[in-house]
Amino acid sequence: MSSGYKSWILLTGFILFYVAYLLFGAFVFSTIERPVEDKLKRDIQVLKEEFLNQSCVNATSLENFLEKVLQANKYGVSILPNSSASSNWDLASSLFFANTLVTTVGYGHTTPLSDTGKAFSIFYALLGVPFTMLVLTACVQRLMHLVTYGPISMCRQKIGMDPLAATAVHFAILLLVVVLGFFVVPAVVFSYIEDTWSFLDAIYFCFITLCTIGLGDYVPGEKPGQNFRSLYKISVMVYLFVGLMMMYLVLRAFHRMADLHGLTSFFQLPHCDEDIEEDKEPIIEAGPEDQHEAEASAKPLDPASHTSYNTINR
Amino acid sequence: MSSGYKSWILLTGFILFYVAYLLFGAFVFSTIERPVEDKLKRDIQVLKEEFLNQSCVNATSLENFLEKVLQANKYGVSILPNSSASSNWDLASSLFFANTLVTTVGYGHTTPLSDTGKAFSIFYALLGVPFTMLVLTACVQRLMHLVTYGPISMCRQKIGMDPLAATAVHFAILLLVVVLGFFVVPAVVFSYIEDTWSFLDAIYFCFITLCTIGLGDYVPGEKPGQNFRSLYKISVMVYLFVGLMMMYLVLRAFHRMADLHGLTSFFQLPHCDEDIEEDKEPIIEAGPEDQHEAEASAKPLDPASHTSYNTINR
Repeated sequence: MSSGYKSWILLTGFILFYVAYLLFGAFVFSTIERPVEDKLKRDIQVLKEEFLNQSCVNATSLENFLEKVLQANKYGVSILPNSSASSNWDLASSLFFANTLVTTVGYGHTTPLSDTGKAFSIFYALLGVPFTMLVLTACVQRLMHLVTYGPISMCRQKIGMDPLAATAVHFAILLLVVVLGFFVVPAVVFSYIEDTWSFLDAIYFCFITLCTIGLGDYVPGEKPGQNFRSLYKISVMVYLFVGLMMMYLVLRAFHRMADLHGLTSFFQLPHCDEDIEEDKEPIIEAGPEDQHEAEASAKPLDPASHTSYNTINR
Repeated sequence: MSSGYKSWILLTGFILFYVAYLLFGAFVFSTIERPVEDKLKRDIQVLKEEFLNQSCVNATSLENFLEKVLQANKYGVSILPNSSASSNWDLASSLFFANTLVTTVGYGHTTPLSDTGKAFSIFYALLGVPFTMLVLTACVQRLMHLVTYGPISMCRQKIGMDPLAATAVHFAILLLVVVLGFFVVPAVVFSYIEDTWSFLDAIYFCFITLCTIGLGDYVPGEKPGQNFRSLYKISVMVYLFVGLMMMYLVLRAFHRMADLHGLTSFFQLPHCDEDIEEDKEPIIEAGPEDQHEAEASAKPLDPASHTSYNTINR
């Protein structure tokens, strides 16, 4: 059997396994959430009946009223008196929205109401998403010196550590620092500031945000009468940006470590020889910035050039 | 001034420009959306007063009732009678939710209600997001032959086109096909199926989805009494997956074209020499799959090896 043919069969198997993974997820979510949803549905129906019994409102006029209430709520406009004070479109909130748009997090707790707003969102994200990737990549590139090459090189020179051990220890420490500094500590802070958030809620928020999934069921600074709302929103923006940078940094450090420890082949898909020649550059939604890395990488490396991560570990 | 110093100044300028871009976006969004929001707020208050006047309900009991209604609505449970028939957590909807989670789109139109569901979401996405990137990358790698290398090579051999012209014409055609096939045509279909969606709404949905922003203000198949709901949800999943693949394909074709036309340097950030040596691999949230591309790219290319995209265009 040719390697090309074998590679197609393996890819098919891989896709089938992916479909199975999705189905497994669907099954678990359905099993866990269906009963909770059913209970909530019953509760809300009982609530509605009680409300209708206690008042002289007829069902149809209540439903017409509620339909409009829910419609307005979809656009982030609440009928409740305590939430009408703050706007979703003041400058700080708009900045927060713009930031979640270009980082592809997209909570959707507030969404453009007007057609002009929707059209502007498209054009704004069209430029903003690659621009954000560009800025993030450039920052991560600089941080790699400080956070990865520096410490590893120091470990090797000062303590005389083995290169493989040095990268593994470095990665473990980096991961611990990021998990503590960008998940656990922020979660403690969020669960303290946001009255209704448990610690799990806060960890779930941090994870869903830094993976850019952004479900939007938990959004900081949305409770009525939030103190220092604008400052808080901007702090969350900074957390989001620095957090995304750290996620890329960890991913990059993982790539290097996996490469050095020969784990890469474990994750690799089989591929035809042509692919090796042809697939010269990174793909995934990076900005055009990645391009220069690909170019740089196409150059044969000169091990004698100077002390770099690659030459250190030879 | 050393090149390293200059590069830091340029990076700072770049970041300042990014902050300005965010502020500009915030200003525009605030200007466009604030008046629309204010009008909606006034309308909803008038509606509430009218409802209170016409009925014998007092304001406090109505507000208590509405608070619970809005809380349930946040979890995707509507009080309206026509929406209670379909569940958000049947198998097809759960599959759709799992899919939006692992592709990082995350509409958030339905979100886990229970703590178990939230904890499972974290673990599911932790494995699922890299897995999805891996599958997408592997598929795009195969598609590149069919969609990029093949047609370009044919253009050159059959029509005797100049390599630069061939890649430019190829990219223009690919972009047109993707815009038509994955934005315009799906938008026509969505605006036909979804009664309340205008064509702009549908285009906005396609764009927000395929950028993985996923605001969730427009989600297909959510209207009460949707025909063939499960089939429709699964079709949207397929659209999402294939659409993401096409987005990566276009990005990759753009990288190649920009590289060949010397546009890459235009997008490049200045960087220190060390970076070139050290930044050997792609970063941005790709799966470990990207690693082998980086490895492949670290090899000096042999122009005589065989007919590849790179050798063709020399």
